[in-house]
Amino acid sequence: MKFQKFHGTGNDFIIFNESDLSIDDYSILAKKVCDRHFGIGADGMIIISESTKADIRMKFYNADGSIASMCGNGIRCFSKFVYENRLVDKKKFTVETLAGIMKPEVIVENNKVTFVKVNLGKAVFLSNEIPRSNNNKYFINEEINVEGTNLEISSLVVGTIHTILFVKDFSDIDIKKIGHAIEHNKIFPIKTNVNFCKVIDKENIEVITWEKGVGITLACGTGAASSAVISSMLKDCANKINVKVLGGNLIIEQKDEEIFMTGSAEFICKGEYEFI
Amino acid sequence: MKFQKFHGTGNDFIIFNESDLSIDDYSILAKKVCDRHFGIGADGMIIISESTKADIRMKFYNADGSIASMCGNGIRCFSKFVYENRLVDKKKFTVETLAGIMKPEVIVENNKVTFVKVNLGKAVFLSNEIPRSNNNKYFINEEINVEGTNLEISSLVVGTIHTILFVKDFSDIDIKKIGHAIEHNKIFPIKTNVNFCKVIDKENIEVITWEKGVGITLACGTGAASSAVISSMLKDCANKINVKVLGGNLIIEQKDEEIFMTGSAEFICKGEYEFI
Repeated sequence: MKFQKFHGTGNDFIIFNESDLSIDDYSILAKKVCDRHFGIGADGMIIISESTKADIRMKFYNADGSIASMCGNGIRCFSKFVYENRLVDKKKFTVETLAGIMKPEVIVENNKVTFVKVNLGKAVFLSNEIPRSNNNKYFINEEINVEGTNLEISSLVVGTIHTILFVKDFSDIDIKKIGHAIEHNKIFPIKTNVNFCKVIDKENIEVITWEKGVGITLACGTGAASSAVISSMLKDCANKINVKVLGGNLIIEQKDEEIFMTGSAEFICKGEYEFI
Repeated sequence: MKFQKFHGTGNDFIIFNESDLSIDDYSILAKKVCDRHFGIGADGMIIISESTKADIRMKFYNADGSIASMCGNGIRCFSKFVYENRLVDKKKFTVETLAGIMKPEVIVENNKVTFVKVNLGKAVFLSNEIPRSNNNKYFINEEINVEGTNLEISSLVVGTIHTILFVKDFSDIDIKKIGHAIEHNKIFPIKTNVNFCKVIDKENIEVITWEKGVGITLACGTGAASSAVISSMLKDCANKINVKVLGGNLIIEQKDEEIFMTGSAEFICKGEYEFI
């Protein structure tokens, strides 16, 4: 079965066109193909499919075979694939996902997609939309006790729940320990991602994301976006911010309350995968 | 650049034919192509090259770009590639490696290589050939103190230095802690691999290998072989033993003091890799 492998800031994906597939159980396919030793190896699998609601459809599977509604780094890779392989014929198009219709825009140089800009929608701050046991209307700059230390955190939803903790220096903090402790704190009944955010200046922040159920990741698009939103709100940062993540850089822009993420999408290899 | 990806009991490799390569620095290529997020992803890279001393030559690189003299799981995958792609025309052929001339034999069914048998040479027991600070002639059933516990270990060289520790049950022991502690014990000046070996019966053992500088691996061919040799010597096991490793099974056979390893080699995918 024909495949291509891409990464977006180090978050890597195997992409198939549904018409090339000879298997129906995509969950099993994702588990096999994403296995880093027995398969090609990736964080996730994307299947390009036809849509009746949008120009094209993206089906996303995590490496464990579970379905994910959307993936910020994944949709950039998807967009590069469908544009360069002429499955869409415009630079701004609509993509059906389980999180709704997304509208990526590809930035093209010499017929190659270098960057992709994605509208991530609006951030959600209201307490009734963020699963947590605390009843305040917002959850911004709240003090909680983690492993014996009082920490100020802020939570919001951009695609999924994100909690932001500002740090002066990453070496000051045990990211694994604190990330795990906040993720599992009883205040978050369905757990939370945790973003450790260091403000460099008004236009530059650095973020390390602890992803729930996963751990430290090279890049989490919605985590970078959430961190940028809270940095503008609390740290007087600009509306357009460069976010340095472990796997590269993302530009987060806030405009009319909508959040736009621009980042790279890189082709790694293409070929034939033998599904057994 | 054309590549193929294979695995041998979960130990995975990217294989190139030297004639397809457009880059000279194989160390940089290995680091890039083996990177699990920014590259295709593998434990090692193998380059097929011409030889003046043997039928064909295998150059082996670890994922960190360093050169390895040989790799037991790697040479099985190499053998499948060169036989199925008709770079050799016989089932038993000679391969030049930095560890000397190897003589793999492919087992073929319907024109496909299912298993490969490799002569790993003789085990070395003499103290002057095993780097360690203890001066006994052999290092078999020696008691050392590790993290406050006295453990009986045996060391030998099969390709590289291996230390074997018998366990009743893997759950009885903290493999990471003990593996790391033995690897770094001052008795081994250039460190050692550590094999945790459970004897099931005379013809079956189970091995988990802690590889020096790496940690727990899915399969270490020479570690499985070393464990089989010591199991025959100390635990009355047979000369032909099935070794269950985390990534599958290996058959280790001792004959006229030589050690033969038989195991699978599986094709995963092939394609074009874009080196940037």
